[in-house]
Amino acid sequence: MLTVDMDLARRLFETLAEKTQDPPGITRAAYGAGEEFAHGLVRQVGRDLGLVQAVDAAGNLYLTLPGRQPELPQWIIGSHLDSVPHGGNYDGAAGVIAGLCTIAALKHAGIDPHRSITVMVIRAEESTWFPISYLGSRAAFGLLPGELLDTPRSDTGLSLYVHMAELGLRPDAVRQGEAHLNPEHIHGFIEVHIEQGPVLEMADKPLGLVTGIAGSFRYRTGRCIGSYGHSGAVPRPYRQDAVVALAELITGMDEIWAKQLAAGRHATVTFGEVGTDPEMHAFSKVPGEARFCLDVRSDRVETLNLLHAELMALGARIEQKRGVRFLWGERTGSTPAPLDPELRQGLAETATAEGIGFVEMASGAGHDTAVFANAGVKAALIFVRNQNGSHNPHEAMRLEDFEQACNLLTRFIALQEQ
Amino acid sequence: MLTVDMDLARRLFETLAEKTQDPPGITRAAYGAGEEFAHGLVRQVGRDLGLVQAVDAAGNLYLTLPGRQPELPQWIIGSHLDSVPHGGNYDGAAGVIAGLCTIAALKHAGIDPHRSITVMVIRAEESTWFPISYLGSRAAFGLLPGELLDTPRSDTGLSLYVHMAELGLRPDAVRQGEAHLNPEHIHGFIEVHIEQGPVLEMADKPLGLVTGIAGSFRYRTGRCIGSYGHSGAVPRPYRQDAVVALAELITGMDEIWAKQLAAGRHATVTFGEVGTDPEMHAFSKVPGEARFCLDVRSDRVETLNLLHAELMALGARIEQKRGVRFLWGERTGSTPAPLDPELRQGLAETATAEGIGFVEMASGAGHDTAVFANAGVKAALIFVRNQNGSHNPHEAMRLEDFEQACNLLTRFIALQEQ
Repeated sequence: MLTVDMDLARRLFETLAEKTQDPPGITRAAYGAGEEFAHGLVRQVGRDLGLVQAVDAAGNLYLTLPGRQPELPQWIIGSHLDSVPHGGNYDGAAGVIAGLCTIAALKHAGIDPHRSITVMVIRAEESTWFPISYLGSRAAFGLLPGELLDTPRSDTGLSLYVHMAELGLRPDAVRQGEAHLNPEHIHGFIEVHIEQGPVLEMADKPLGLVTGIAGSFRYRTGRCIGSYGHSGAVPRPYRQDAVVALAELITGMDEIWAKQLAAGRHATVTFGEVGTDPEMHAFSKVPGEARFCLDVRSDRVETLNLLHAELMALGARIEQKRGVRFLWGERTGSTPAPLDPELRQGLAETATAEGIGFVEMASGAGHDTAVFANAGVKAALIFVRNQNGSHNPHEAMRLEDFEQACNLLTRFIALQEQ
Repeated sequence: MLTVDMDLARRLFETLAEKTQDPPGITRAAYGAGEEFAHGLVRQVGRDLGLVQAVDAAGNLYLTLPGRQPELPQWIIGSHLDSVPHGGNYDGAAGVIAGLCTIAALKHAGIDPHRSITVMVIRAEESTWFPISYLGSRAAFGLLPGELLDTPRSDTGLSLYVHMAELGLRPDAVRQGEAHLNPEHIHGFIEVHIEQGPVLEMADKPLGLVTGIAGSFRYRTGRCIGSYGHSGAVPRPYRQDAVVALAELITGMDEIWAKQLAAGRHATVTFGEVGTDPEMHAFSKVPGEARFCLDVRSDRVETLNLLHAELMALGARIEQKRGVRFLWGERTGSTPAPLDPELRQGLAETATAEGIGFVEMASGAGHDTAVFANAGVKAALIFVRNQNGSHNPHEAMRLEDFEQACNLLTRFIALQEQ
């Protein structure tokens, strides 16, 4: 009988919530007390289950059920244990606990798999602590640029290097690019994660099978430069109003986005921070400057390129029309990570056979899975329905939805490995 | 020979610039050192010219050339001597110096006027020091609400009451509404002031004759409330994006404004301060709140009412479409002050006869003249061309343009009073 032990899951979620609470919500700082507690808790479960333990230079933890043919490329099921400050209990932790429950169920059913199965407990996924994407998973492949070890943590001001050293980890090896994982030795990577938006809730399905993880282009320090003037005394034809110009950029991009969606292309467009200059603006001044952040995401490079071209053309039209200048600042971003269609197909067939509801969807949010996919590993990402968005204390997940994810994972692996 | 002594004007402007400099620009705080210096300088000129001096409870200074029939309602020529911090030398001071030069020219030409002519040196017109419109001129009519004496000055934090008392003035009398001026005893009020916009420069005319001073409606604490979400994970249909909604309000009002202008209605529409919440916003969050200030001005009440109705309707449409709410906050504002057509006509005829170039125009900026007009006094406002906007250190005025204003004023008064 292949059954998932929900008592184990419930106990782990409750213990995490209790021991890492920081009202409102919970806080598990990357390389901090909350993450350390969570790693300790999970290590104990690994011991109870008789799993083989390993820790890499960056502190990622590997709990392995060795296969009958340990020389074969292995399965990795993983996610992270850090959280944003005052965040929710499930973001990250759900994927680690799903992995442990899967191994526990396989063992309990007496299944002795061909391939080794590892639960990977990833460090530092939330970039609020260090402004670095996929810190832990990149380090596991030896891909973290060495200079990033000097990055200070947002709360302590101490460097990543110092924080790693304090926990007895090996930051010098991380800096030298020591790799614990080799893509060729991984048969497949599967991450379970709460959805960070409302799509599954709206679609009334417990699970999502992710087709790809969005890439992005970003302008974090955009400025629109016009000129200041007296709000009553400068008539319309003489104005170079930076706020009206920026508003036109925002509504213009909103229309362009709507057209892309109508054409069947996935994307998001967000101006998350905007503002006039507090040093210079005034209630009775035509605003001479407006600042903005822009985050554009899509699962396809072509869509990103198209939206970027539209942005530049729109900006140039507004500059012409309103006598302003856009200073875009540095462009950053990431490449979309398409996930493995074959692995997804396998999961979809198992779900259908087991009567588990799901939708296929793109992920606008980034996840460690992207690092595995971009390293050439066959990767899959399973979303669990979440009622209240993510990165907030009200984040929610029903345990019965989580159970469906564990069932899917357990049956899929059992099918492959028996 | 009726000639204006430009050496006097030049000397006064230079002394003011030198003694109240505060690089960049000049600072003459209301009831502060700069304004006090300027009052002292002007009082000395009054003594040199043999004028009768009076000071009211609020510290407004009156320098009077008594007429042959002092029982007749008098002429008042006036403006203010305070400035914004790091402002220009001409905003306010030009009107006082124009009055002194006019009286000097009349005396020099041996003209003994029928009516008394008073140069009124008004206190505290710039509301950066105390957030109070027309402080000095309202106090002169006993119209300053008593509770405003408790208002702290923006730099010192000390109350208006304390600042008046420190200068030996009579704040208790101000609080009790003691009036120095009676509208029935004023034949006409004329203010000379630099234009605070580019209209005269663009029209290539030295002077403007103002038809009316704009009134306004204002929302200084507007908020658009949406809801925060993950910038990648919340798809378009589920967003309540406060920034996009505010951008739509801004571009919508900009279009409505353009239509009003096309229909021949004078107005200005300015969102001078906008911004997301620094405590809550993030680069990768759909913004759940955006704040704004709105300043709408027009010389006609009907246009203000029409624009306000359009604003409310537009806001309601956006709320419906985007699932946001506009919290407008307190509405403040002022009533437009139409200026006297007969007095303006007289000035226009004199200008034409003397070959002085002018345009008729509305004033979008507020001026003390509005208080006189609203008190029922026949009032006129003469703008002098200014090259670099106002309330900044680069504010500029050509002395030959100022001379034209003095010539106009002197000839007009001489014509009436000889």
